[in-house]
Amino acid sequence: MGKNKNFVKEITPMEEDFARWYTDIIIKNELVDYSPVKGFMVIRPYGYALWEKIQEFADRRFKETGHKNCYFPLLIPESLLNKEKDHVEGFAPEVAWVTHGGSEKLGERLCIRPTSETIICNMYSKWLNSYRDLPYLYNQWCSVVRWEKSTRPFLRTSEFLWQEGHTLHETNEEAQEETLQMLDIYREVAEDLLAIPVITGRKSESEKFAGAESTYTMEAMMHDGQALQAGTSHNLGQHFTKAFDITYLGRDGKEHYPFHTSWGISTRLIGGLIMVHSDNRGLVLPPKVAPTQVVIIPIAMQKEGVLDKAEELYDSLKEKGIRVELDDNSKESPGWKFNQYEMKGYPIRIEIGPRDIKNNKAIMVRRDTLDKVEISLDNFEERISKELESIQEDLFNKAKKFREENTFKVESYEEYKDHIKDKKGFGKAMWCGSKECEAKLKEETGATIRCIPFEQEKTSDKCHFCEKEAKHMVYIAKAY
Amino acid sequence: MGKNKNFVKEITPMEEDFARWYTDIIIKNELVDYSPVKGFMVIRPYGYALWEKIQEFADRRFKETGHKNCYFPLLIPESLLNKEKDHVEGFAPEVAWVTHGGSEKLGERLCIRPTSETIICNMYSKWLNSYRDLPYLYNQWCSVVRWEKSTRPFLRTSEFLWQEGHTLHETNEEAQEETLQMLDIYREVAEDLLAIPVITGRKSESEKFAGAESTYTMEAMMHDGQALQAGTSHNLGQHFTKAFDITYLGRDGKEHYPFHTSWGISTRLIGGLIMVHSDNRGLVLPPKVAPTQVVIIPIAMQKEGVLDKAEELYDSLKEKGIRVELDDNSKESPGWKFNQYEMKGYPIRIEIGPRDIKNNKAIMVRRDTLDKVEISLDNFEERISKELESIQEDLFNKAKKFREENTFKVESYEEYKDHIKDKKGFGKAMWCGSKECEAKLKEETGATIRCIPFEQEKTSDKCHFCEKEAKHMVYIAKAY
Repeated sequence: MGKNKNFVKEITPMEEDFARWYTDIIIKNELVDYSPVKGFMVIRPYGYALWEKIQEFADRRFKETGHKNCYFPLLIPESLLNKEKDHVEGFAPEVAWVTHGGSEKLGERLCIRPTSETIICNMYSKWLNSYRDLPYLYNQWCSVVRWEKSTRPFLRTSEFLWQEGHTLHETNEEAQEETLQMLDIYREVAEDLLAIPVITGRKSESEKFAGAESTYTMEAMMHDGQALQAGTSHNLGQHFTKAFDITYLGRDGKEHYPFHTSWGISTRLIGGLIMVHSDNRGLVLPPKVAPTQVVIIPIAMQKEGVLDKAEELYDSLKEKGIRVELDDNSKESPGWKFNQYEMKGYPIRIEIGPRDIKNNKAIMVRRDTLDKVEISLDNFEERISKELESIQEDLFNKAKKFREENTFKVESYEEYKDHIKDKKGFGKAMWCGSKECEAKLKEETGATIRCIPFEQEKTSDKCHFCEKEAKHMVYIAKAY
Repeated sequence: MGKNKNFVKEITPMEEDFARWYTDIIIKNELVDYSPVKGFMVIRPYGYALWEKIQEFADRRFKETGHKNCYFPLLIPESLLNKEKDHVEGFAPEVAWVTHGGSEKLGERLCIRPTSETIICNMYSKWLNSYRDLPYLYNQWCSVVRWEKSTRPFLRTSEFLWQEGHTLHETNEEAQEETLQMLDIYREVAEDLLAIPVITGRKSESEKFAGAESTYTMEAMMHDGQALQAGTSHNLGQHFTKAFDITYLGRDGKEHYPFHTSWGISTRLIGGLIMVHSDNRGLVLPPKVAPTQVVIIPIAMQKEGVLDKAEELYDSLKEKGIRVELDDNSKESPGWKFNQYEMKGYPIRIEIGPRDIKNNKAIMVRRDTLDKVEISLDNFEERISKELESIQEDLFNKAKKFREENTFKVESYEEYKDHIKDKKGFGKAMWCGSKECEAKLKEETGATIRCIPFEQEKTSDKCHFCEKEAKHMVYIAKAY
């Protein structure tokens, strides 16, 4: 028996050490592993299956909204990266440089894409002719590299998987509409697929994407009260189209620069998924994203009829399109299996033994609540199907309730400074809009302005940081 | 009107200049474009849609045969690449080296993966414990970089998209079975999806993968009679598992090295797809891989009822799961549209005008034969569906017939040398198995041994190159 197979590995309780709890969950569930290159992770099959579910959902929505996939090169010449001033300042310090191809030194250094605006704009400038060609609605799924000093699997790694959409439009209004449409699709990915409630809004000037006109974000609250930026969508205006001289012949017969957006979500979402739903027994997966939704565990399976019944239930669920596994391994005890599948976060466990069968029943255990109930074998698959829907909904509501309980109106900056020392969560504060106040907050508390939410609420007339006139209500929090 | 929109762009006839014909097809159809980094291509939406179809088909078959996807890092430390002697000799001359991360010089150079055996074996050595963990059946979809001096889109580029499967097994028999199973799945991709007939067999020692025990290949014949290696599957034996010290506790309680396979197909297949089916009017796409299978072109669409009928036909095809487009653009003439969709290789074009509607008919034009027939609007969608199946089959048979007509028994080496100067195709020759004969063939003719086919046929007792005793019948050809 393999050295890892004898026991369900222990997970550090989150109250004791949140960071270790997180690491235990991802390593012990074999979601990822550390690679020999510092900061680069290996995404193992169980972790990758989560990414495939995210891809499937998002890709379908991208296509439904008229986007097409394509692929741009991994390497970008240094001269291209340098074309947009803010962009190069933002990214140059964290790119990996290729200096040799085979045995030859390259004439110009190439960076591994940290994001692809520059190479894509270079191609767009070659392709675009007329307003008839617009809009350009393209996306690519790929990996990007950003050299990070301190990394954590899924949350911040030197390489990560993502998608990046890059669109061009005739008018600023259309670009703005696209930017917000894609943010809303990201909200669907977070809320409808991953059951993660998010706050949507605009980033402050200091927090926006390097080269953007405006950046929009969705922010989620983790179990420890910290924020996670879970996806961003940028209205890039004409910053890049001017820098890259992308023009088209307009309806008026004149040359114009198009308006530009880009937007991305990444494997970081998996980190969020874990830190929103999981508990001290391990992963908790919302059914829609769970690679396996139901596991059936036969009890006393040497007894006549048990395995047959288990297989019958398996077939009935499978036929209904439910992702189901039957664990008929006779080497492990049922108790060991229960722990194992709890750790793996399978949404529903079904136990079925001789006595259950006699009573036309089975035991159903929900992973989210750990509630154990007897259910009838009549209309079994409908019952399970409904239960999966209810788990999905309950997880979302639970996470939303948690966020609401840990969101508070800031009364005064002094009070907030005290509060944030040992308690976390999202503060709703009023802000004058100045960089100085934003910098002061960050320096003195470690918290940042997460976003200027679309849903505004005036809690005071004055900025909480400088007492001048307030312009916006903002969410402030410590963040990953 | 955009400068590219006024005319259907001309394609150089393949008889005049095959290489230019190929380039015209891919550039004018916007399948790919050249990027600012030499040898790196941009895969544009129409080209990428072909890749998505290949991925979909192959990924489904991988999963049906028990494989799971995962993701390993892009960068590999030089020391890992160096661990397997043959492998490093094969790949080191063509890798791209990263020497700087951000502003810092790295302690050890990292190469961009040319293939991932080394980094994957490094992880497998950490993960594998017991025979109970075997087999490991993992795959990843990613891009790889191999610094090529002379490149052609899809066929040979410095970066390409592919999948690489990496498996571990208890016994050599199982590894061999896996190697051949995956080759057979590749044959399905080629023959069943892409309608490309292939010869399957084993590579010679000189042509096998760097570090493999044996390499198996599928070879296809292009329109110009040259061979394309379209996919390979390697039995790696214990070369890497020993070099990377991957061991497990066996059934006998002792430590063992597992047996290892790897296998890959890439965007190169798209190059093959083009060079097998397309003609001087442009692309010809087999229906199963065609992003759009049917285009409906209304004629005189200002006339009452025409657009309605066209939409009705569109809906009926769509409902049957056929990928259909309706071109109701009134700015372009029908004739322009016909040329355009012929160039794009849409398998079926439907023309429908007022007179057709009155007669309860439509005109159907098959892209492969350019045959134009009247068909009834009764049972329209069934007719189209059958026609698509028949196009798929006919394209395969046509390509197979072409290959057979251009495959010949080598009578003598002298005769072959003459033949291969101006005529191409596959020669069936007998070979003694020596490296010397193989090298002589390559040096003197530019042709290579493509494979030792599974289907052997003895055409002579003696090696065609040295007159010694023959061991194998081999296919010889010039190749991409």
